[in-house]
Amino acid sequence: MLLLRRCRRLTAGLSPAQAQRARPATSTAPSWCGVGGGSRSSSGGGEDGQTSQDPRWRPALAGLLAGTGAVLAYGLHHHKAERPASPMEPALPVFSQAEVSKHGSLEAGVWVTFRGGVYDITEFVAMHPGGDKILLAAGGALEPFWALYAVHSQDHVLDILSEYKVGELDPEDQARQRAVEPSDPYSGDPQRHPVLRVNSAKPFNAEPPPSLLGDSYITPSAIFFKRNHLPVPRVDPASYRLRVEGLPRPLSLSLADLKGRFPKHTVTATLQCAGNRRSEMNAVKQVKGLNWGIAAIGNATWSGALLRDVLREGGWGPEAAAAAAGGGARHVQFEGLDADASGTTYGASIPLNKALSEEGDVLLAYQMNGEDLPADHGYPLRVVVPGTVGARNVKWLGKVIVSREESASHWQQNDYKGFSPGTDWDTVDFKSAPAIQELPVQSAITQPADGAVLERDADGEVTVRGYAWSGGGREVVRVDVSLDGGKTWQVARLREGDGEGEEQGEAPPPPPPPGRAWAWKLWEVVAPLPPGEQQVEIVCKAVDNSYNMQPDSVAPIWNLRGVLSNAWHRVRVTVRED
Amino acid sequence: MLLLRRCRRLTAGLSPAQAQRARPATSTAPSWCGVGGGSRSSSGGGEDGQTSQDPRWRPALAGLLAGTGAVLAYGLHHHKAERPASPMEPALPVFSQAEVSKHGSLEAGVWVTFRGGVYDITEFVAMHPGGDKILLAAGGALEPFWALYAVHSQDHVLDILSEYKVGELDPEDQARQRAVEPSDPYSGDPQRHPVLRVNSAKPFNAEPPPSLLGDSYITPSAIFFKRNHLPVPRVDPASYRLRVEGLPRPLSLSLADLKGRFPKHTVTATLQCAGNRRSEMNAVKQVKGLNWGIAAIGNATWSGALLRDVLREGGWGPEAAAAAAGGGARHVQFEGLDADASGTTYGASIPLNKALSEEGDVLLAYQMNGEDLPADHGYPLRVVVPGTVGARNVKWLGKVIVSREESASHWQQNDYKGFSPGTDWDTVDFKSAPAIQELPVQSAITQPADGAVLERDADGEVTVRGYAWSGGGREVVRVDVSLDGGKTWQVARLREGDGEGEEQGEAPPPPPPPGRAWAWKLWEVVAPLPPGEQQVEIVCKAVDNSYNMQPDSVAPIWNLRGVLSNAWHRVRVTVRED
Repeated sequence: MLLLRRCRRLTAGLSPAQAQRARPATSTAPSWCGVGGGSRSSSGGGEDGQTSQDPRWRPALAGLLAGTGAVLAYGLHHHKAERPASPMEPALPVFSQAEVSKHGSLEAGVWVTFRGGVYDITEFVAMHPGGDKILLAAGGALEPFWALYAVHSQDHVLDILSEYKVGELDPEDQARQRAVEPSDPYSGDPQRHPVLRVNSAKPFNAEPPPSLLGDSYITPSAIFFKRNHLPVPRVDPASYRLRVEGLPRPLSLSLADLKGRFPKHTVTATLQCAGNRRSEMNAVKQVKGLNWGIAAIGNATWSGALLRDVLREGGWGPEAAAAAAGGGARHVQFEGLDADASGTTYGASIPLNKALSEEGDVLLAYQMNGEDLPADHGYPLRVVVPGTVGARNVKWLGKVIVSREESASHWQQNDYKGFSPGTDWDTVDFKSAPAIQELPVQSAITQPADGAVLERDADGEVTVRGYAWSGGGREVVRVDVSLDGGKTWQVARLREGDGEGEEQGEAPPPPPPPGRAWAWKLWEVVAPLPPGEQQVEIVCKAVDNSYNMQPDSVAPIWNLRGVLSNAWHRVRVTVRED
Repeated sequence: MLLLRRCRRLTAGLSPAQAQRARPATSTAPSWCGVGGGSRSSSGGGEDGQTSQDPRWRPALAGLLAGTGAVLAYGLHHHKAERPASPMEPALPVFSQAEVSKHGSLEAGVWVTFRGGVYDITEFVAMHPGGDKILLAAGGALEPFWALYAVHSQDHVLDILSEYKVGELDPEDQARQRAVEPSDPYSGDPQRHPVLRVNSAKPFNAEPPPSLLGDSYITPSAIFFKRNHLPVPRVDPASYRLRVEGLPRPLSLSLADLKGRFPKHTVTATLQCAGNRRSEMNAVKQVKGLNWGIAAIGNATWSGALLRDVLREGGWGPEAAAAAAGGGARHVQFEGLDADASGTTYGASIPLNKALSEEGDVLLAYQMNGEDLPADHGYPLRVVVPGTVGARNVKWLGKVIVSREESASHWQQNDYKGFSPGTDWDTVDFKSAPAIQELPVQSAITQPADGAVLERDADGEVTVRGYAWSGGGREVVRVDVSLDGGKTWQVARLREGDGEGEEQGEAPPPPPPPGRAWAWKLWEVVAPLPPGEQQVEIVCKAVDNSYNMQPDSVAPIWNLRGVLSNAWHRVRVTVRED
């Protein structure tokens, strides 16, 4: 309860509304999104204007690193390249920007500049996990894109680049480049709570300390994990319009429309990043991606219009379903307003039947935990797809498209998919695996922490707490906990709802309707520490109502992107005798 | 292909229609079901009449062994009883049947007779897993019920009983008993194919050899696993009526009604017994139940009326849903026509939303693989609940009831549920776990067989084949196969559909709609045998499109009923050098 109170103070201390107010009202930062041509900020930023005036920045290096952290894999991969390193060459030729610009294609060679050097990366293009999007950089400078994907600022990335150096850029052209360097595209990002553990600052990715997470049934917005792929777009709520396409009657809806013309629905749902617990896969063998701990998951109350209602307003119904696209519409695509320098926006899609189902509960949400969405969570509108991986819950929603096809985005097609442990970057065929939608059953121990030292007191007991959840609306029905590394098990007490009524002796809330258990369950075991043991391995595993269980170990589910990490969670603690 | 052809010959050799014709047309066996008062056979059997005339057989020992094989657990349990064994007592008193009959309650003591002995089983009642149904036997003879549940005919069951012996039954009463002993209630069971491996003859439970199973995408009805809880009822199709209750307009439907008034739907769906692969749990620690191998699963084409259509015909709709039972109807109960001596029928239920969903595909099926249902598979009508454990696919369907409550049957309430490996018969609380509905992801190796000896030929390769399936309509998207006990993995080729078009170079069939992948996938890997190894452990594990995976090992998912056995499947083979 102490932790719970502390957690609530955190929220009170930095409400979403305050976090938004904390942004400077008259920022000079560039706008990375224009909303229906009417965004107030799109004509404001000075640097934005400059950028537009310089054609060399557009087309740009969009998607150079579509998945943050991908450079880690580049390094591994590069050792297989046959080209010998040549960092020792004494005097390299000097090239003008005009000469560099001629090398803007695979045929002519792909050159880029960085900090006054000229690099021929033609041979690297084929090794680029994001495919030929890297060609958008051809003939220009890397700096603006490395500002966007700040994870590049690591020594080994520079080492890789150095191997491709072919010359120096003319000093006069270097001076011209410096004059047009854009400001930091992340300067408009909101202020964040200092308790968060930051995995990547730009784009911002962070998770709360596990002990806070496990102590609050509803995760306060301020400590809810942040998973951004791009800078947070600044959206003017007055001019905002959601466009809905692929329907008999395309729609353009203002926030007032969304709030006034459709019933408001509220759903308590857990969102989890596909990469939650990736650090455990990294411990087996390095994977590509942010090194998340166990807290890239959270549970919140979301309010908004049902996507189903909006699609019906646009004329979707049995007749439209039969007529539209030869009856073949099967997906709903979402486009975010967060964009990279080339204008490529974040995107994802879900199956149409999930969107249309009365039991799908897919929201166009404008509130989180009873307040306007915080900037980091998609203000002013996001999709909430209960039971489905975080990546499909598109934030800063700009467009909804009913389509025969899945989203063509990198994140739907070439990321967020699961592969066999035997599949590596040389053999992976992204088309061979389905995009992750529903997530598998999951649980983790939030207390005690891994590596904690416990004092063995008079009763010799330990309190173990954690969370458990499963995708697809499957309710967690049991959590087994072991204090001997998995040899023997006991059943944890599941704490229904927020547990407040329970503490006051009230009946627990009714169970969710079948197939609609969107929210996690927190659980607790108070059990005797094994007598005489100084090293104790505590393990948990959850079971959902389809009786799927978590796999025992990490190695057999290891995959090159480090997603879907849901093996038994283990924490090792040291017990000190009193 | 050789096996496939052989398999088809098996079917051709004994079609379901033939199997039914094989039953004697004018049987004198008793009928264990009466259908709406109009069953032709209900007035036919001589023994049936005798049984009815003898009040001592009714009330009877219904549900003494509701789960076949439960006696195995009794044995284990009995060792904990405090009562010392007393088989050596030299001379026990003689009781008349009238005296025995006075001991028909817990208050008066619970006595039963068996083969001339009198037994006081009062203390055993509390240890009976099926609860106080055992009291139906009080004051009477065990023989007719042990004929029904033939698994009792084992020495250790007699040993248990012997410990409760208190006397001898008067010889004159013994003679009277013999005069009214009923004939074998299983005498009306259909003929079965001799290739089946029989786990229990009465009731009949059998599975095909795995190699046959894995070689045929559609499992021929003759070799499809049989899982009967009671004698096969003999149902007259002309007088058969399905009663549908709990609706604004209760229905009584003939077979002609079901075939003529509702569109015929055909679904290819895999059914799996909850106890499939129980033998692997038994190898860890003995469980209660039939010792199934890996073939208590099969894939067939089922045709019939949609349950949804029938419920709507009965007036079910949004209005009825709101009005019925205070809007609280949540389940659809099914009652079979297979009954025990007390008239208790097999029963189960499913969630109402599964029955009503357009995407649920729940059938009232009258055909299997294009022919009338075989007697063992529910002739003339059964429920097929795709994606759901076999136990809810009630055969010989007599009644459908929309209700606020789950089925009250033993099989819904006190069986077919999963528990923690730490839960035993002393601590189990059946109310604490949900009835199994959707099954977890599953796969197994059908070739080579466990223990097989392989010759290492010139190419040194082995062909590994198997099946993979998941509950809830979740499509299997990948099967990983290891030839080194799980250290390294390769991806199996999934054979879509029946593979016939594939062999002729045709495009594979379109994928099932999302959430409606009801049929299994067969898979195959041709891989080099590990060089130099004489002992090879082959392992498989499947992944479904919610990315649930099979757990690594059996012990951590062990449960006292031995259900939900879906750990990695392992076969060990010996390799002989050529």
